[in-house]
Amino acid sequence: MPNITLDEAERVVQAAKAKAMEMGVKLSISVVDARGDLICMVRMDGAPWRTPYVSRGKARAAACFGVPSNDLTERALQPVFRAVMEVEKGEFVPGQGALPIFKDGELIGACGGSGGTAQEDEDAARAGIEAL
Amino acid sequence: MPNITLDEAERVVQAAKAKAMEMGVKLSISVVDARGDLICMVRMDGAPWRTPYVSRGKARAAACFGVPSNDLTERALQPVFRAVMEVEKGEFVPGQGALPIFKDGELIGACGGSGGTAQEDEDAARAGIEAL
Amino acid sequence: MPNITLDEAERVVQAAKAKAMEMGVKLSISVVDARGDLICMVRMDGAPWRTPYVSRGKARAAACFGVPSNDLTERALQPVFRAVMEVEKGEFVPGQGALPIFKDGELIGACGGSGGTAQEDEDAARAGIEAL
Amino acid sequence: MPNITLDEAERVVQAAKAKAMEMGVKLSISVVDARGDLICMVRMDGAPWRTPYVSRGKARAAACFGVPSNDLTERALQPVFRAVMEVEKGEFVPGQGALPIFKDGELIGACGGSGGTAQEDEDAARAGIEAL
Repeated sequence: MPNITLDEAERVVQAAKAKAMEMGVKLSISVVDARGDLICMVRMDGAPWRTPYVSRGKARAAACFGVPSNDLTERALQPVFRAVMEVEKGEFVPGQGALPIFKDGELIGACGGSGGTAQEDEDAARAGIEAL
Repeated sequence: MPNITLDEAERVVQAAKAKAMEMGVKLSISVVDARGDLICMVRMDGAPWRTPYVSRGKARAAACFGVPSNDLTERALQPVFRAVMEVEKGEFVPGQGALPIFKDGELIGACGGSGGTAQEDEDAARAGIEAL
Repeated sequence: MPNITLDEAERVVQAAKAKAMEMGVKLSISVVDARGDLICMVRMDGAPWRTPYVSRGKARAAACFGVPSNDLTERALQPVFRAVMEVEKGEFVPGQGALPIFKDGELIGACGGSGGTAQEDEDAARAGIEAL
Repeated sequence: MPNITLDEAERVVQAAKAKAMEMGVKLSISVVDARGDLICMVRMDGAPWRTPYVSRGKARAAACFGVPSNDLTERALQPVFRAVMEVEKGEFVPGQGALPIFKDGELIGACGGSGGTAQEDEDAARAGIEAL
């Protein structure tokens, strides 16, 4: 399984943080690997305590399906999604704010944000990934 | 992070209790700090055993988002809210009955009620906070 | 089931708080009814966030068996106690710091402390109960 | 409650990471605030997927008691610690590898490592904190 490196993940997080500062929002930003496991996370000063795990859960959902987590929201009440959410105990959040990361066409991880509007969370993630 | 003191929290709880007596309802009333952790709780004689933790969970939700818990109800089935409820294991209740507490514009805690109608729960919390 | 009233529980908590201040320790103090359900709790300024639920769990254990929670510590690794702790999910703490409350020979509740040494927790609970 | 800033937490994490590289071990390193909530985490390339949450749980334990998490290990089977571990659902790890962070005598957070020996985990955390 190809995976994003910590160096790359830190660049993503720093660029997403810069975008959040530019937008004037206080976010947590998580990068996970292709398996959905956490590599790197920052919580900006003033971002609520829930945002680290929410950003992580969105990123895991995006990595798990290889699509923007927003694409999963419609299905969030379907039995399969409810089962995955139950098994993952809050570590799988099929809501807008995370995007998968690809390299040479292969999934290598995902980046998710939490603390702004769902659109701002996603915009920060996108800016982070574009910095790669 | 500024926090309500125990002295202040006890005044809130006593005033909310007085309001509940005036309304003729038997409530539990919880005050949490800005992080959502419990500071002070009373359960009036005859209020059911579930009401301490329900009032606490509403107060935590109000503190977590800095808004009346009633404002969160519509979003309670969204993925992010379901994840937070799962992680918090019943300690996060996005239903009417709790209000955030601000001091000089900063969130310092929240007060929540349980045991009456949702509106009565919220009215008691409001009366408590106004006593500050 | 005879039960301590909220008025009585508040007197217990206030007297236990006064004792804690006299000892110079920052405690949470919980009073539960004969069923072990919470009636009243205060967390003194500076007492850690874990102390509300730890004091509550000790009080529940004391009420459940009608003995000082300290008397249960030796049995805490026995299968029955492990089962109760598992079912109660942290709301049953068979460790020193809580005492049962009796009235006319009948169990009416329990008071537990957390945040000091286990002995200080118990001393505060005792002072609270003696105020009844 | 005073809290470490993200800027400070990132300096701690980077210095702990440098120490881990010098020791030739692959760690996850977490910094939490005084409440025990995550601020910043990195997982070095090759560190196992369990290490982010183990390092976080050790850091939370150190912040919760304001002592090195190693000082808590002996008590880990006591009822209070079992209850806290149960309530915190794996987010509280009273094992060696994390140290509290103080500023002007006040607790502002904690740093924890996971992935090496418990001593290496703690050494990395110490090097991180000394960089402040």
